[in-house]
Amino acid sequence: MKKKAKTEKKPLILVVNDDGVDSQGIRALASVAQEFGKVVVVAPGAGKSGMSHAITFTNPLRLRRVHTASDFEIYKTNGNPADAVKLAVRHLLKGEKIDMLVSGINHGANTSASVIYSGTVAGAVEGCLSGITSIAFSVVNYNKECDFETAKIAAKQLIASVLEHGLPPHICLNVNIPNIAASDVKGYKITRQAKNYWNEKIEMRTDMANVPYFWMSGDMEEVDKGRDTDHWAVMHNYISIHPINTDWTNQEMRETLKKWKLTF
Amino acid sequence: MKKKAKTEKKPLILVVNDDGVDSQGIRALASVAQEFGKVVVVAPGAGKSGMSHAITFTNPLRLRRVHTASDFEIYKTNGNPADAVKLAVRHLLKGEKIDMLVSGINHGANTSASVIYSGTVAGAVEGCLSGITSIAFSVVNYNKECDFETAKIAAKQLIASVLEHGLPPHICLNVNIPNIAASDVKGYKITRQAKNYWNEKIEMRTDMANVPYFWMSGDMEEVDKGRDTDHWAVMHNYISIHPINTDWTNQEMRETLKKWKLTF
Repeated sequence: MKKKAKTEKKPLILVVNDDGVDSQGIRALASVAQEFGKVVVVAPGAGKSGMSHAITFTNPLRLRRVHTASDFEIYKTNGNPADAVKLAVRHLLKGEKIDMLVSGINHGANTSASVIYSGTVAGAVEGCLSGITSIAFSVVNYNKECDFETAKIAAKQLIASVLEHGLPPHICLNVNIPNIAASDVKGYKITRQAKNYWNEKIEMRTDMANVPYFWMSGDMEEVDKGRDTDHWAVMHNYISIHPINTDWTNQEMRETLKKWKLTF
Repeated sequence: MKKKAKTEKKPLILVVNDDGVDSQGIRALASVAQEFGKVVVVAPGAGKSGMSHAITFTNPLRLRRVHTASDFEIYKTNGNPADAVKLAVRHLLKGEKIDMLVSGINHGANTSASVIYSGTVAGAVEGCLSGITSIAFSVVNYNKECDFETAKIAAKQLIASVLEHGLPPHICLNVNIPNIAASDVKGYKITRQAKNYWNEKIEMRTDMANVPYFWMSGDMEEVDKGRDTDHWAVMHNYISIHPINTDWTNQEMRETLKKWKLTF
């Protein structure tokens, strides 16, 4: 009986990302999550960076088990990160209590306006919408191969803390880890989302038929100089913890709008 | 001189949507916008509902003028609504001051969690991130062919009000119009985003090779009974005006997290 009770308590942790099921970052996160409970990975089969909270309902979704040497189950989908979460919650793990969702570890920062574009963040937001305690993790390193050791230490500490404290409904966490050795980390900062935006560069080229096409790239415009932001934190060797609200309402503006006295 | 000054003052209005450049809703919105200034339409060539704030930077974008009988310019892209805005702001209208962005009129409500999935809302949020005064419009009618007369009256009134009052930085408006005759509209409600979510139904089918595929649909779980929400407003014959914050930070949770005393 004692043994059974212990088994029942083992948390079920869903792992998702936007870099794809075969990325180094998701493997790092799943290995950390496994220290806390049973892990199921459901993630895009291919990279879905910048797909934000896109969902798939006008095309069919696929879901397929990936057979590897892992001692946890891995599934890939043709869908986006939010689709992966929905397939897990409403189909694959239907009826099971998912105790936590972790998304990432993303290869690249998800601070400032990137929070809005990120598929990794959307994975956590989708978990949150489904009532699951959710955390997104990103490391400020854009390489396919990178060192996740510092990020893994942070992920372990934060999964433990969040399992202990819980999170209120409608709030998830967006964690960004600087690309430095653990010994150089100055600590955690509880941050707000910086009001920096991408200034896109659109480069026009022409294809073989002489028809123009465009590549989009960009630079982050660092207009927000606040020292309490997600961007500032990672640029100054802190790990940023940014609490995200799934309700985007600006309450102050509601009061302003009421004063406009609009009549139809 | 007087005439020239008047010409210079004519606002430049960018029109975008997620239902595609050839939808009835965008034509309705462009015709209203044209009463206020010069209109340029840049929108997806095909429907991009549910694409949220997805952006395209790992594939080339296309942008092509659509030649129609309209007396405003229309361009279509293979990208998503946010891409359309970026192509307009950073390429097509680069160097010009865009006075307003309007997105829609969406065929279908964008209230509750749908705010997060919506490409129409993302179009307005992207305009807002680029420093443009932006409004998203949706009508609670999911048909391809529908009556936009009530929505057009609301759009005209709100474009006029917003041009007069302006909007603060980092805030855009999400407007939802019930699918009723203008005479039945009870007025405007300044709302918050309802905490309702989609309970997805995943239907599994098998293809010709006997491999499973999945269609996603869903029902809105109306768990938020508040009478101050976007959802309540449109269900009770009000036009909902929901002010959206591009900063998703939950400030209260920042204070809670500080009490956790996390140390790395």
